Amino acid sequence: MRQVIASLGISLDGYIARPNGAVDFLFMPEDFSMEPFFETIDTAIMGRKTFEAALRMGGGSFMGSSLATFVFSCSRPPGERDGVVYTNNSPAALVRKIRKRPGKNIWLMGGGELIRAFLKADLVDELHLGIVPVLLGKGIPLFPSGFPQRDFSLVENKTYSKGLITLHYRRIRPKAQ
Amino acid sequence: MRQVIASLGISLDGYIARPNGAVDFLFMPEDFSMEPFFETIDTAIMGRKTFEAALRMGGGSFMGSSLATFVFSCSRPPGERDGVVYTNNSPAALVRKIRKRPGKNIWLMGGGELIRAFLKADLVDELHLGIVPVLLGKGIPLFPSGFPQRDFSLVENKTYSKGLITLHYRRIRPKAQ
Repeated sequence: MRQVIASLGISLDGYIARPNGAVDFLFMPEDFSMEPFFETIDTAIMGRKTFEAALRMGGGSFMGSSLATFVFSCSRPPGERDGVVYTNNSPAALVRKIRKRPGKNIWLMGGGELIRAFLKADLVDELHLGIVPVLLGKGIPLFPSGFPQRDFSLVENKTYSKGLITLHYRRIRPKAQ
Repeated sequence: MRQVIASLGISLDGYIARPNGAVDFLFMPEDFSMEPFFETIDTAIMGRKTFEAALRMGGGSFMGSSLATFVFSCSRPPGERDGVVYTNNSPAALVRKIRKRPGKNIWLMGGGELIRAFLKADLVDELHLGIVPVLLGKGIPLFPSGFPQRDFSLVENKTYSKGLITLHYRRIRPKAQ
């Protein structure tokens, strides 16, 4: 089954961006690479605000890539434009549709509001977090409140240079009764 | 210099407690011990709500211990009662007073509001976080927003059983100009 993986860099106080959307505090040290992760995915999902922030910041690595990219938006008409597919489906419906075809895993890129919607629907199979050693004090949270408790198991915990750590968690779902 | 160390257990989404104050989601696996930390401290500081929550939950390990315990409160008269010292000093004034005497490090136990006040005053020298592998979805945050950016360096990252990880960070303060 194609796994939905929320993979993001965050501050130690859990922000994916400053209040204005800037992500200057995030960094990738030389001994860290996203390549092994990219090899496991072929699809990216994000919210419209995250998509537009990525565009403003110069495109984002997902643009023009071979990733099938879906952008959730209530305000934009659904359909393929500019290399991405806008959708107003529910998260569950989109994931169901993607999983009808064989393929690699699915990168849930954010932002926090979309991740909350996916957690509400219990669609997040894995969390991959990169945590940088800074408290921002304010910003856009990765996990805004408002979803039911979700238990995970720790799969991997690695330390990189400059204080970056990466954590991989896998969802533990209660067994059906 | 006696270091101020904020040491707490939190959920993966950064909560020190559920909305009602319950901390049932926290756990200490057999291969983890607070003893090495306790050997480095002789003083505990906490906010009144945290103190009262600890009392409600059966005392808390700091009660009747050899720790000098200070409770921040605007509503209670200052002075020593029930084995603790109530104070309405500023965090800076209290830390200055404690540091006038030689001694061990100072445990900043929380809660989030007091930690924010200490971060505002740049009084947190170290962070020791124990992170359990659960997203609560709502609760009382360790780092409520509203303090300036504070940079840290990672000192230690350890993995324990049942998915507990512990992170130690040390404050990097900008050098005086």
